[in-house]
Amino acid sequence: MSERTHVFQSPKGTRDFYPADMALRRHLESIWRQMSINHGFEEIDGPTFEHLDLYTVKSGEEIVSQLFRFKREGGDTDYALRPEFTPTLARMYAARAGSLPNPTKWFCIPNFFRAERPQRGRLREFYQWNVDILGDPSSRADAEVVAAAIDALQCLGLKGSDITVKFNHRELIAEVIRQASVSSVNVEAVMGLLDRRDRIEMAEFERQASSLGFDAKHFDSHVGEVAAVINEAIASLETGREPSASNRGPIVGQVVALCRELAARGILNWCEFSPSIVRGLAYYTGMVFEIHEAAGKERAIAGGGRYDGLIELYGGPPTPAVGFAMGDVVIRLVLEDKGLLKPGEEYLPRPDVFVISSGDHLAEKEFASLIARLRREGLHARHSYRATKNVGKLLGEASKVRARLAIILGKELEGGNIIIKDLESGQQRETPLDGVLHALRTMLAETA
Amino acid sequence: MSERTHVFQSPKGTRDFYPADMALRRHLESIWRQMSINHGFEEIDGPTFEHLDLYTVKSGEEIVSQLFRFKREGGDTDYALRPEFTPTLARMYAARAGSLPNPTKWFCIPNFFRAERPQRGRLREFYQWNVDILGDPSSRADAEVVAAAIDALQCLGLKGSDITVKFNHRELIAEVIRQASVSSVNVEAVMGLLDRRDRIEMAEFERQASSLGFDAKHFDSHVGEVAAVINEAIASLETGREPSASNRGPIVGQVVALCRELAARGILNWCEFSPSIVRGLAYYTGMVFEIHEAAGKERAIAGGGRYDGLIELYGGPPTPAVGFAMGDVVIRLVLEDKGLLKPGEEYLPRPDVFVISSGDHLAEKEFASLIARLRREGLHARHSYRATKNVGKLLGEASKVRARLAIILGKELEGGNIIIKDLESGQQRETPLDGVLHALRTMLAETA
Repeated sequence: MSERTHVFQSPKGTRDFYPADMALRRHLESIWRQMSINHGFEEIDGPTFEHLDLYTVKSGEEIVSQLFRFKREGGDTDYALRPEFTPTLARMYAARAGSLPNPTKWFCIPNFFRAERPQRGRLREFYQWNVDILGDPSSRADAEVVAAAIDALQCLGLKGSDITVKFNHRELIAEVIRQASVSSVNVEAVMGLLDRRDRIEMAEFERQASSLGFDAKHFDSHVGEVAAVINEAIASLETGREPSASNRGPIVGQVVALCRELAARGILNWCEFSPSIVRGLAYYTGMVFEIHEAAGKERAIAGGGRYDGLIELYGGPPTPAVGFAMGDVVIRLVLEDKGLLKPGEEYLPRPDVFVISSGDHLAEKEFASLIARLRREGLHARHSYRATKNVGKLLGEASKVRARLAIILGKELEGGNIIIKDLESGQQRETPLDGVLHALRTMLAETA
Repeated sequence: MSERTHVFQSPKGTRDFYPADMALRRHLESIWRQMSINHGFEEIDGPTFEHLDLYTVKSGEEIVSQLFRFKREGGDTDYALRPEFTPTLARMYAARAGSLPNPTKWFCIPNFFRAERPQRGRLREFYQWNVDILGDPSSRADAEVVAAAIDALQCLGLKGSDITVKFNHRELIAEVIRQASVSSVNVEAVMGLLDRRDRIEMAEFERQASSLGFDAKHFDSHVGEVAAVINEAIASLETGREPSASNRGPIVGQVVALCRELAARGILNWCEFSPSIVRGLAYYTGMVFEIHEAAGKERAIAGGGRYDGLIELYGGPPTPAVGFAMGDVVIRLVLEDKGLLKPGEEYLPRPDVFVISSGDHLAEKEFASLIARLRREGLHARHSYRATKNVGKLLGEASKVRARLAIILGKELEGGNIIIKDLESGQQRETPLDGVLHALRTMLAETA
């Protein structure tokens, strides 16, 4: 390879989005965006890179170890590409907390960067939907973010049998941990161990539990009792009955309140109490949840929870907060696996009209100016770049690009008329060139 | 400031987009996107960072000096945040040239990064619309990209008297430079000098011209003659006459052909032949253009041109190409200055419906599930988070968030009915809760 003919490639773990891939990305993003808006969230965004210390303060160790860090040439400020959104959100909320509505409901769909080993479901650059409610401590807010996630997944074609929303409560687990400890334990360390439980050998789990003074048998049994109470409440709510008053303490009461809110929104049947879900990130304080493919295929589709202490850490007032994130990589794998994605080409915007010139003098004269006028008036108008003037071949090209209508500029122009053909029904009509916009809009409204 | 109460800020030269700012950004992007689609371009995107050498090959010196460069911790590959799109576009086109349509028409709206001193019209992170046609060497393609730019600016509210599209032809200028040289000169160096002409002292310009063996007087006079021929052709075309056959050589012929294509699209009157526009980037080979505010306020709104040699340099086949870029920072300043931007809040999506509960038992029971259903069915539905059940106050809140309709759940629920109120006309009707979706859709269609 000579210096002048490099073959370049995109960096490892990043993607080139050609039109069909991009159309698919936009399809996903537009459902995320529309569902966020329907649910009353407002879109925000922050810088693609932040000061490094925004992340070293409170992001999990794993995330900090995967930062892409840099300085400006000749500068000494440390920056990092954003690996997640929560620190930016907390910074932005803290900076204007006094003038923001209560609650503040924000969403965003930015890209994030992690210098990890690219693998199935994980890339170095990915897109992620973030949804957060700030200022509302209630179970209603918890249920609201879960509802937004479920509605988007449903809109993407997933059914209740395809996915499971697994939820838990960190305080509940912390309480059971404390009760199942032979000595005063570090609850966070045990929580971390429980988060890794499915991924490490049982012997290793037991060794670590024992070194932390944590009695896993007692924990499992106690958690089982709590789960039974909660599952009974869920069973009541699913059949429209009010659950019997719980005597299991205030946190179980909170979990039951969440279930009631989920039931009121018609989504309790998508959800399941899962005491093994504790989430790796240290900033979660209450309800936590993950959305998984029902059979456990792929990594988690989404994850989130309540993080009531975080805004304060970034200089804001004490602010209850709850939210979740859903990346584009795993959901795409799940949708593909279930046959819920059409080929990317089918998500490309369809041309409203394909303009064809028969090659006559008058047709050639009108051709460019007609197309320019249609586009300026808001229509998606295309034409062939081939030399042929064979109307049949050009109609074939129009169908191939999935145009709805075709305009044929032919001998009718001598009388001031053109032909408009509906490419789906095959019907065509002759109409004055003067009134072409009105005629096209009418036909497009009919075929839409 | 204690370690736990950092007040963080966004990095210098970057922006936080709160909802109103974000809505304004989306307004701009959606016009860029819709106009690109109307003109038959398909959207693509590449990675946010690329291998460093993608930029050091052929980007201008100024751009290379402003790169944010980094490596992965423990890795030795050099990366850079993208400072412009053309190298990514060239790489992507080269990688699939054999299977792409001819011409290939691509657009994108990514963010870019330059480590320059932030100043009016220039930031370290900005968004930019890129539009390119690959594979078409004709003046028609040149005119097509100019038309897309003008249509978008027109859609943003700008008129012909607000902006000027200044165009030129690099080969034409190169030819005149060669004729105006007392010795064999480096055409590129003189081109660079001409690009800086307006920004340096006249004495300095003359010193550099003389050291390059370049006779600026002869150049100016010759360029004046060429401009007169072209302007005469433009005057003819603007009055619908065919320009007289030019005897000024093939490149003037190309410029006149471009003018003819611009005239056919009804946009020649937005354009002006400007021999001083040569563009700084070395990769331009033919037509070049810049769009300026008519009175010369602010930096260029957009710039582009033909770059027929670039794809080959990135490993692709020889491919004619033409395109332009328009950043979000300067256009926003121009639109603001001309009063063409509403307050950002007015670009926020309007709620379709605001749901109000009177506080009655039945109303409270239906409240959450009704809202959940409306959202799931695709409506933008909101409600108050305040404790008040005062319907008048809640209707005030509905109007404040610019909702189109309000649903009032009151005593009518006993008979299975609800009230829907049109918040613009003030009219209201009682309708069965069962048929609420149909009733809302009908009223929304009427008010839209």
